[in-house]
Amino acid sequence: MLKVNPNLEKIEVSVIRKIAEACKEYEGGEKTLINLTIGEPDLPQPKEVIDGTIEYMQEEKLGYPQLGGMLELREEIAKYYREKFDVNVTSDEIIVTVGSTEGLSTAIRTIILPGDEVLTPLPVYPGYEPLITLAGAKLVKIDTSSDNFELTVESLKRNMTDKTKAIIVNYPSNPSGVIISEKNRDEILKFAKENHLYIITDEVYSEITFGERHNSFLKDGYRENVILVNGFSKSHSLTGWRIGYIISSKKMKEYLVKVHQYAVTSPSIISQKGALIALKKCQDISSQVEIYKNRAEKVYKKLKDEKIDVIEPKGAIYMFVSLDGITNLDSLEFAKQLLEKEKVAVVPGIAFGMDNYIRISLVKDEEILLEAIDRFIEFIKIR
Amino acid sequence: MLKVNPNLEKIEVSVIRKIAEACKEYEGGEKTLINLTIGEPDLPQPKEVIDGTIEYMQEEKLGYPQLGGMLELREEIAKYYREKFDVNVTSDEIIVTVGSTEGLSTAIRTIILPGDEVLTPLPVYPGYEPLITLAGAKLVKIDTSSDNFELTVESLKRNMTDKTKAIIVNYPSNPSGVIISEKNRDEILKFAKENHLYIITDEVYSEITFGERHNSFLKDGYRENVILVNGFSKSHSLTGWRIGYIISSKKMKEYLVKVHQYAVTSPSIISQKGALIALKKCQDISSQVEIYKNRAEKVYKKLKDEKIDVIEPKGAIYMFVSLDGITNLDSLEFAKQLLEKEKVAVVPGIAFGMDNYIRISLVKDEEILLEAIDRFIEFIKIR
Repeated sequence: MLKVNPNLEKIEVSVIRKIAEACKEYEGGEKTLINLTIGEPDLPQPKEVIDGTIEYMQEEKLGYPQLGGMLELREEIAKYYREKFDVNVTSDEIIVTVGSTEGLSTAIRTIILPGDEVLTPLPVYPGYEPLITLAGAKLVKIDTSSDNFELTVESLKRNMTDKTKAIIVNYPSNPSGVIISEKNRDEILKFAKENHLYIITDEVYSEITFGERHNSFLKDGYRENVILVNGFSKSHSLTGWRIGYIISSKKMKEYLVKVHQYAVTSPSIISQKGALIALKKCQDISSQVEIYKNRAEKVYKKLKDEKIDVIEPKGAIYMFVSLDGITNLDSLEFAKQLLEKEKVAVVPGIAFGMDNYIRISLVKDEEILLEAIDRFIEFIKIR
Repeated sequence: MLKVNPNLEKIEVSVIRKIAEACKEYEGGEKTLINLTIGEPDLPQPKEVIDGTIEYMQEEKLGYPQLGGMLELREEIAKYYREKFDVNVTSDEIIVTVGSTEGLSTAIRTIILPGDEVLTPLPVYPGYEPLITLAGAKLVKIDTSSDNFELTVESLKRNMTDKTKAIIVNYPSNPSGVIISEKNRDEILKFAKENHLYIITDEVYSEITFGERHNSFLKDGYRENVILVNGFSKSHSLTGWRIGYIISSKKMKEYLVKVHQYAVTSPSIISQKGALIALKKCQDISSQVEIYKNRAEKVYKKLKDEKIDVIEPKGAIYMFVSLDGITNLDSLEFAKQLLEKEKVAVVPGIAFGMDNYIRISLVKDEEILLEAIDRFIEFIKIR
């Protein structure tokens, strides 16, 4: 009687959001707060996108979008995948979503049932487990630290049971910045096909790689198994626009679109237009990627010079820094003290299932980032 | 293995959408197609909203919105409810959603569990049952034709079981245009409170009433039981912007926001700004309502003059027309033949659970609407 879904008791509002909100009380004062929590690109949104969208708003009706997304946008996404990832995608295999978040939610609601188990490598983006929990299923987190933080078939085999329904992967990884090798990607695809497992692949950082090519799990021959989620928040800094997409098999799309339709009707038509312009006119984001790459290299070097153990990022916009040998505090307490004493806000690794790490977002100018690292180093020396 | 959620086999893509898409093949030719299917206001979006939003896009960062929605927008919604509906709403009882659809989806996912039963009056908006089905629950539809299409406590009592968890109401009603009386509203609230039932109230047509006042289910004294869903698609024609909101108790909001956050992160910040302007600068929509009212009156009179049985709408943007005495065809077949022979597209009543009706959307100029009614009358005379 007047009870809510009991699975909700097991779900918390995002730790990252909480830390970000807690930052507010440290604003002002002599020392400036450096907030490196939220994974929100600081680079500007493309002017072409804003200008073109404004023009569209002045000229068009802005009525209900087509079910599943604007055809022109879906065609452009399909073309992008055909050209960039050499995979035979068509517009009827795509749904335009309210950011990659809605894509993940829709994918999980479509395939995951109570009692199912879903395998994922650690460290893990904290947006997956609540959706799995809400579906009454269980996220099984796989330690990958001895595999250079890449998921391998061997580790999948060790964790698979007769309840295993799907694998969630997120490369380039938030928070580790790791990219999966072609070999591991291919072996995992083969394993999923042989064992009739779904792969939900969150590739929202696919455009931000520092030299090595991103190996997409969307690959011909394995399309029945794979649901890909991507979006424009990271590649084009369009966070507030809430626009992304799902690519699946055509058959799977017919199921996904039912969940999508009754969950949101569609994303904003304004945001869909913005995404279309981003793909048509601003596809080359190499200068933005170069900025993230430089930041990553500088921060990495500075940490390494101090003998601090940190995963070298090959993509995405984060540094995942080990606390081993630095502190005996848990990551939340460490992050709190760092915030309190040095006014540097980072996300405790426990948010990603690894309590001996912190995540630093590379979303400030280099100078500010390096100042934050100086303070971090100062903090761990004093303690 | 590689199975999807079996509940999805019971869910279809919206019949309304299908009919609307089927219309396309009847476009062109000597006789113009009159499409009265989708409930999409034809009246223009307020210029202030578009201009103000464009200005915001030129000046602001358009980053991640605040969790649960822009504070200023939530405060404005709260103020609106306090002033217009005399209910003590505060901003921390509101979540801004991706249209009212996401509000419904989030509400249902938060409170409805497998095996639950949810009561709703017929005719029923077709967006509810798929969400209930996906939750593994059952929508129990209550015949209200002998109660002037209002839900009553007596009919609730007849249909309640020990599995009943919630009631979904939608007044002003899509498709019937019926408003619930203050007496019935109050009795239902009392009944829900006494029996520990939730009420999900979809009041997306609350602003469009033809004289009589809309009686909101959001009422002090019953706030723990009620989750209200509303949006800007109908009141301000902002369909493509996908912006709405949920009002609940503060305690309930804490659960709802977990589902909301992991489902969509948030609605577009651009759309949130548009909604804020709509409330601040375009709250008086009386001239738009007058247009719908005139259309409803003219169409109603014309049908009545032909002795056609039709529910007199007191609000919303539809006419629900009885086929009794007109045809022996089911509503889908009738709608198909009407489309084929007279090029008038309407929604078969079966979409709303009543096969002896059709729904006409009042979303064209009066002249076109009356032309459609002429064709409808011609069609039923010839048959």
